[in-house]
Amino acid sequence: MLKLYSYWRSTAAYRVRIALNVKRLSYQMIPVHLVKDGGEQHKPEYLEQNPQGLVPLLDDNGKLLSQSLAICEYLDESFKGPKLLPDEPFLRAKVRSLCQIVACDIHPLDNLRVLKYLKGELNVSDEAKDTWYRHWIHEGFRAIELELQSYKEQGFFAFGEMLTLADVFIVAQMYNARRFNVDLTDYPRLVEVEKHCLTLDAFKDARPESQPDAE
Amino acid sequence: MLKLYSYWRSTAAYRVRIALNVKRLSYQMIPVHLVKDGGEQHKPEYLEQNPQGLVPLLDDNGKLLSQSLAICEYLDESFKGPKLLPDEPFLRAKVRSLCQIVACDIHPLDNLRVLKYLKGELNVSDEAKDTWYRHWIHEGFRAIELELQSYKEQGFFAFGEMLTLADVFIVAQMYNARRFNVDLTDYPRLVEVEKHCLTLDAFKDARPESQPDAE
Repeated sequence: MLKLYSYWRSTAAYRVRIALNVKRLSYQMIPVHLVKDGGEQHKPEYLEQNPQGLVPLLDDNGKLLSQSLAICEYLDESFKGPKLLPDEPFLRAKVRSLCQIVACDIHPLDNLRVLKYLKGELNVSDEAKDTWYRHWIHEGFRAIELELQSYKEQGFFAFGEMLTLADVFIVAQMYNARRFNVDLTDYPRLVEVEKHCLTLDAFKDARPESQPDAE
Repeated sequence: MLKLYSYWRSTAAYRVRIALNVKRLSYQMIPVHLVKDGGEQHKPEYLEQNPQGLVPLLDDNGKLLSQSLAICEYLDESFKGPKLLPDEPFLRAKVRSLCQIVACDIHPLDNLRVLKYLKGELNVSDEAKDTWYRHWIHEGFRAIELELQSYKEQGFFAFGEMLTLADVFIVAQMYNARRFNVDLTDYPRLVEVEKHCLTLDAFKDARPESQPDAE
């Protein structure tokens, strides 16, 4: 039995929800409220399971795994269902690289704990915080949009005909960008990929607003 | 022929240099000076190859790949030599997860471009910048130290007997922590893993101070 510790608005958890759906795996969702009472992720019983105090966390029959990209690849390597990474080594690497632009160089800079630090410890204004937020999304999206140019004739997904983890990571990050009113004019390819993916149930059912803990 | 665009002090490039050495792959190193003239990584000819304007970048006979973890896994999947990831799916996933704690949740927050933003756009003092730097290292190291407790009886490496990408990522991040005088008292396991790895030529030869572009 798979359990996923998730929060509806966490884009890292959103990625894993999509991956679980694409693999057609059923799972029990355990909501961790990241805001209420200072954040349930900081409670001792949660920290015992994930010392980082972050979501998502996968529990596969007692085996605990953190970090969304590691979880997605674990699901892909351990379970049947459509593959999330291409077989060809260089293309696999390009997909991973694109996921890491999102997972390493966009999202961690705009994460809740970082925004809290900016507001709290550094006393940054709301306006400067929002500018920071958008800055790192633009930095990453500019690079991703360029990287994807050479694949756009090949199909509706980021890398062409095959749905990959790149699509999963892009869709989750686009949700975040829209939530904070990032101007997406310069990223037509990202918009196109997102639009196509959101016609698919695996993506639709994983959306933040479709989660039982959505507010 | 493999080429690596690298900067001696970049810990992301340091990871890839170690991985190349562990795999016993020869490569041509092309230094990209991240500081001189505002940073050679921002020059148009470099941005054409890596639109993110970051190092490292791998060039495998004209195939270009960014993101250190994606590069390391590509090397592991494409070339012979010692494996950098265990075969067992859950342990593979744990190794990747640990690498991602470093690559997603520590390093990008302390990266040169972020420190520049803090100083420039946000006008943060040097003291507050250093506190920020150490804060994210402590957050990550605390979790890693706990994650590794259950493997410490099994061998000198992070996950026991086998050298994995986890060791590669830990050693590079420890260099960074030492450079900024982070107090490592609470991380005896990390110190032990680092000490053991640095007895090996693959790690020693990849160290920043051993690079041709070291200053």
